[in-house]
Amino acid sequence: MININNIIPPRLLLATTNNGKLRELRSLLASLPFQLVTPEEVSPAARVEESGCTYLENALLKAHAYHAATGLPVLADDTGLEVDVLGGAPGVHSARFSPEPGATDADRRALLLAQLAGKPRPWLARFHCVVAVVMPGCEPQVFSGSVDGEIIEEERGEHGFGYDCLFWIPAAGKTMAELELDEKNRFSHRAIAVKNAIPYLASLTNPQDS
Amino acid sequence: MININNIIPPRLLLATTNNGKLRELRSLLASLPFQLVTPEEVSPAARVEESGCTYLENALLKAHAYHAATGLPVLADDTGLEVDVLGGAPGVHSARFSPEPGATDADRRALLLAQLAGKPRPWLARFHCVVAVVMPGCEPQVFSGSVDGEIIEEERGEHGFGYDCLFWIPAAGKTMAELELDEKNRFSHRAIAVKNAIPYLASLTNPQDS
Repeated sequence: MININNIIPPRLLLATTNNGKLRELRSLLASLPFQLVTPEEVSPAARVEESGCTYLENALLKAHAYHAATGLPVLADDTGLEVDVLGGAPGVHSARFSPEPGATDADRRALLLAQLAGKPRPWLARFHCVVAVVMPGCEPQVFSGSVDGEIIEEERGEHGFGYDCLFWIPAAGKTMAELELDEKNRFSHRAIAVKNAIPYLASLTNPQDS
Repeated sequence: MININNIIPPRLLLATTNNGKLRELRSLLASLPFQLVTPEEVSPAARVEESGCTYLENALLKAHAYHAATGLPVLADDTGLEVDVLGGAPGVHSARFSPEPGATDADRRALLLAQLAGKPRPWLARFHCVVAVVMPGCEPQVFSGSVDGEIIEEERGEHGFGYDCLFWIPAAGKTMAELELDEKNRFSHRAIAVKNAIPYLASLTNPQDS
């Protein structure tokens, strides 16, 4: 394993252009001695076709594409919503869960509720996230996280994005979209996956472990 | 919804004969004003065939069987291990994951590792748990929880049961079988599912909510 302290300052590219995700990742990774950079701050930007059949494939595709474009260490994620009574759909296709080109998050939420209409309740579901870390000279590493809840019919909450406002977390007494950042970083699938990645990331920046 | 404070004392039957699970459940539910009872303390004991195709069906089967046998409010769970490179197996069949009658947990761990031999790493996996609560006069309620980790080849840890000693949780830096009770009740699938059930259970014992 290389000691990335030799790269000064150790930069880590967060491979997402979603500002909500960037805010979560910055908060989760704040304790690590990385200089976190975003795709907007480096060029050329990578274009990634999320063509994988699994979260793992898509997270690795994204991480490798950004690494190839920039040469930087990269952290990328892929995320989906799995609803039990829909056999795990929309799953790995969550972000593209609509036959209509140009469909919005609101369109995808409407499609989800249309598919659930008449299905037996509760609509148990989970958000799942796989985080891939690609470091120069190291094997790619992957980590995962999940959060369980249920889909509700009425949108609640203004934070978050995608299906967050339909995803009720009983232990929190809130939807994912009603969680403030510190709560989201306690409950969320992405937070859990990133926390699983932190020991590995910390080992890269700790000279004793290199 | 009935106010189960009318049942004095409010008893809750934990529908498991596994001492490890009972210890976890007692700790998780300690803050609630239930008198927790075990199958050994009530008779007749229920015999449950876990014949469902899903965790939810099995948890409900178990809860209904114990409720029918005792008339008591019941909390039951069903749990499984899902390994990504095995397409989610052993899943809902985790506890019966062996063609051999009389197979032990050790046999099932050996079978799991045999099926994983040669498969690409990491062996990302999650434990999943569904908790069912059956209360007299109420609709059955179900809650779920998951914990993500990876399967390792070498058994580690003396706590827990089943696949726990092969299930590595990176954020904890330990296998599930190396976690002490308080840590397990922070990380585990069963703890998360029970925490999701607690607001409902608390509402039943809170006169304001009845």
